[in-house]
Amino acid sequence: MNAETKFELPQLYRHYVFACHTERPPTHPHGSCVTSGAQALWDRMVKSIETQGLTDIGFTATSCLGFCSAGPLMVVYPDGVWYRASTPEDIDEIVESHLKRGHRVDRLVMALKR
Amino acid sequence: MNAETKFELPQLYRHYVFACHTERPPTHPHGSCVTSGAQALWDRMVKSIETQGLTDIGFTATSCLGFCSAGPLMVVYPDGVWYRASTPEDIDEIVESHLKRGHRVDRLVMALKR
Repeated sequence: MNAETKFELPQLYRHYVFACHTERPPTHPHGSCVTSGAQALWDRMVKSIETQGLTDIGFTATSCLGFCSAGPLMVVYPDGVWYRASTPEDIDEIVESHLKRGHRVDRLVMALKR
Repeated sequence: MNAETKFELPQLYRHYVFACHTERPPTHPHGSCVTSGAQALWDRMVKSIETQGLTDIGFTATSCLGFCSAGPLMVVYPDGVWYRASTPEDIDEIVESHLKRGHRVDRLVMALKR
């Protein structure tokens, strides 16, 4: 290993999606992303990434990202954009716009309540 | 909600640590981060973040980040730096140098085998 190879890894992924897989009982006051339907959405995103051969896009399930009542939540880095996706169409738009073309999907960006 | 509040969330975290919590049986050919001692290291990092009140640092456990034989692995975004930590001192250095001061710890950056 030399200096030239040492720092190549971070450049492997153009975008990396971290998607919350936390599941709590349906009656839990915090709610959870899986209770809110996350699994089918993440499955769709993974399948889309794989079938389109987007090898520079990473995807990993995470434990709680916080903001549970707003789920299903994901964050896309290095941009640091937090998305709340609700439908298969939301997932497709994030893949097509953000992951493939680098254009943030403003309508799905999670907002803080005030 | 208005345009002014809509995009505040990504700025909540100066750095976000995603740390692999995958566990496979000790005999599994891929290895895994937990088998390689990840849990005690991540516990130390979380405790350090909490006790120092680093409220702009996020930390979440993830499923597999790939590169299993090199674990325990974490990636720090938005920088996209992949670290392989082995000792409590490694964790302390990443917290003090990267998370608190924004200086990458070159000696711990994960490298690809060639």
